Amino acid sequence: MPIPELDTPALVVDVDRLETNLARMAGRAEAAGIDLTPHAKTHKCVPLARRQLAHGARGLTVATLDEAELFADGGCDRLFIAYPCWAGGDRAARLRALHERVELRVGVDSVTGADQLAAAIRGADHPLTVLIEVDCGGRRSGVTPDRIRDLVTHCLRIGLDVAGAFCHPGHAYTSPGQVPGAAADERAALTTAGAVLTWLLDRPPVLSGGSTPTALDGLAHPLTEVRPGTYVFGDRQQMHLAAVPEDEIALVVAARVVSVPRAGEAVLDAGSKALSSDRPAWLTGHGWIAEAPEATVAALTEEHAVVRGLRRPPAVGDLVRVVPNHVCTAVNLGREITVVSDGKIVDMWPVGPGARR
Amino acid sequence: MPIPELDTPALVVDVDRLETNLARMAGRAEAAGIDLTPHAKTHKCVPLARRQLAHGARGLTVATLDEAELFADGGCDRLFIAYPCWAGGDRAARLRALHERVELRVGVDSVTGADQLAAAIRGADHPLTVLIEVDCGGRRSGVTPDRIRDLVTHCLRIGLDVAGAFCHPGHAYTSPGQVPGAAADERAALTTAGAVLTWLLDRPPVLSGGSTPTALDGLAHPLTEVRPGTYVFGDRQQMHLAAVPEDEIALVVAARVVSVPRAGEAVLDAGSKALSSDRPAWLTGHGWIAEAPEATVAALTEEHAVVRGLRRPPAVGDLVRVVPNHVCTAVNLGREITVVSDGKIVDMWPVGPGARR
Repeated sequence: MPIPELDTPALVVDVDRLETNLARMAGRAEAAGIDLTPHAKTHKCVPLARRQLAHGARGLTVATLDEAELFADGGCDRLFIAYPCWAGGDRAARLRALHERVELRVGVDSVTGADQLAAAIRGADHPLTVLIEVDCGGRRSGVTPDRIRDLVTHCLRIGLDVAGAFCHPGHAYTSPGQVPGAAADERAALTTAGAVLTWLLDRPPVLSGGSTPTALDGLAHPLTEVRPGTYVFGDRQQMHLAAVPEDEIALVVAARVVSVPRAGEAVLDAGSKALSSDRPAWLTGHGWIAEAPEATVAALTEEHAVVRGLRRPPAVGDLVRVVPNHVCTAVNLGREITVVSDGKIVDMWPVGPGARR
Repeated sequence: MPIPELDTPALVVDVDRLETNLARMAGRAEAAGIDLTPHAKTHKCVPLARRQLAHGARGLTVATLDEAELFADGGCDRLFIAYPCWAGGDRAARLRALHERVELRVGVDSVTGADQLAAAIRGADHPLTVLIEVDCGGRRSGVTPDRIRDLVTHCLRIGLDVAGAFCHPGHAYTSPGQVPGAAADERAALTTAGAVLTWLLDRPPVLSGGSTPTALDGLAHPLTEVRPGTYVFGDRQQMHLAAVPEDEIALVVAARVVSVPRAGEAVLDAGSKALSSDRPAWLTGHGWIAEAPEATVAALTEEHAVVRGLRRPPAVGDLVRVVPNHVCTAVNLGREITVVSDGKIVDMWPVGPGARR
């Protein structure tokens, strides 16, 4: 993945690797007969989303109203806000407008949240579709399986259309060894949810699973849908968790050596405002440098990365490629992605508003 | 600091507290006869910068060309890029344009960097002013004191105007106990630099110190200038490092409880894309909740904060105020700041482009 001379720090995607990643996941989902609804919070990038849809994705997953509006504006007509989306205040009208524009599904994990959603779309000509969020062990949001029945019953009573349930096996990210267990937990939780929902609903439930590390495990019964995000680019976390090889990494942060203060050390112009400081406890350092895989990105401040353990002496001005720990939070910090093919710039893609509402 | 009902997550500044913070630091610097050149990377906000200048700041400090352009466009006529700014490629013309628009000073810590700066402004009608960055123990960028003489001599030879030296005592951030030591290290390094520079220059050198925790220690000989950033808002880190009391904190991230999955826990809609995941090793958790100071923001993902140890049962929809660990990276994630006074919204301030070049 050679990259051209460019201004730094810069998000750079190798479009050929990206296409390979998109095609591979789409092909696997299609072969398994499972819907692929990629999580677009990873890229917030309309041109990239269009490629996912062209590869057969059944719409997109998003986390926020801002993201939903970005992709609705970009032409996506099927969106899943896989989040216990609050619909109070001005957000009610925004949610309602989305509901009228696209085929919208929204996550719900509480009676209060469900009531707000129902109030937001009151009077619409078709009901809002919701999926019940189930906690499969990640201990974030989501109801425990024993509370599914009551929540579904409530949602149906207030006029919401319950289509199924979804999980995010976030504990896959707690250590590389945890991935198979998290995938099994997700299957178990969705199996339980499926049994409850089959009893309560008049059609087979959607059972939707999340996360890139568990996505391949998820392409099987009982899941009907997967929502991986990071697979498009890969990142240092996925290199460890999902054993993504270096030659499948499609996005790097191009950075420049701006200081060589001590022997074996370099300071790059990509700090926590470019790479983000996301770092799981099981991972040392803040990125993987393609030109110096032996080195450690030992410290990040806002605009500096201090690199230690370099074998070859760096020079001020050197351009390097940093694979960030977590690509979603790194991309969120950029305004555009430089698109390269064979080391040449072929396009510039905007990254949607540093959107988080 | 009451806040009004608003969409979340949102950056909210209490403008009365902000004014108090601005006036206090400006008054102390003025009384000490030391220039205050606040670091504007904390806020990237032109209306706030104008208030700093109105309080007597001698221009602004920035870290990037983007920030320099933002504040030059906003009317600031004296800027210090306190960073070993790379001036190659397209950046040369941008630096040159800034040099012609405002009274510009740029940090330098290498011969290569100095050569690039000199090349960028070649032919200009006045020389570019640089300050030598000296490492006082933070082990980031900056030369060791024994290398100052050679670098100054080189800069003068290639036509740069050397005005003095600057430090950032970044090791003040390594633990609350380290602040006095870091301040002393800064004074020592600038004393050494001052001796060298007095010998080499034809006017008294600028000796510029950084950081909010050490700013008050820095308002004395040998420093001639201080560059604190975070003092405008305060944050959870400063509450511990600089003993900023809760009632001086001027900025919070307003967040909402979107899920109450387990007893004593709440999930907020402010994750690492709102609070940032900056967290020093000596600090547990990801923020301080004004409504629940006993609780821990135990886990952050992109759009969720999981709060544990709540004494009072939370409800979905509750609005809370989170003091972020590091306000600079949190503000960098926003697009605007909601300005409140006595709990009422009085203004909206834009946050400059999610700028990092």
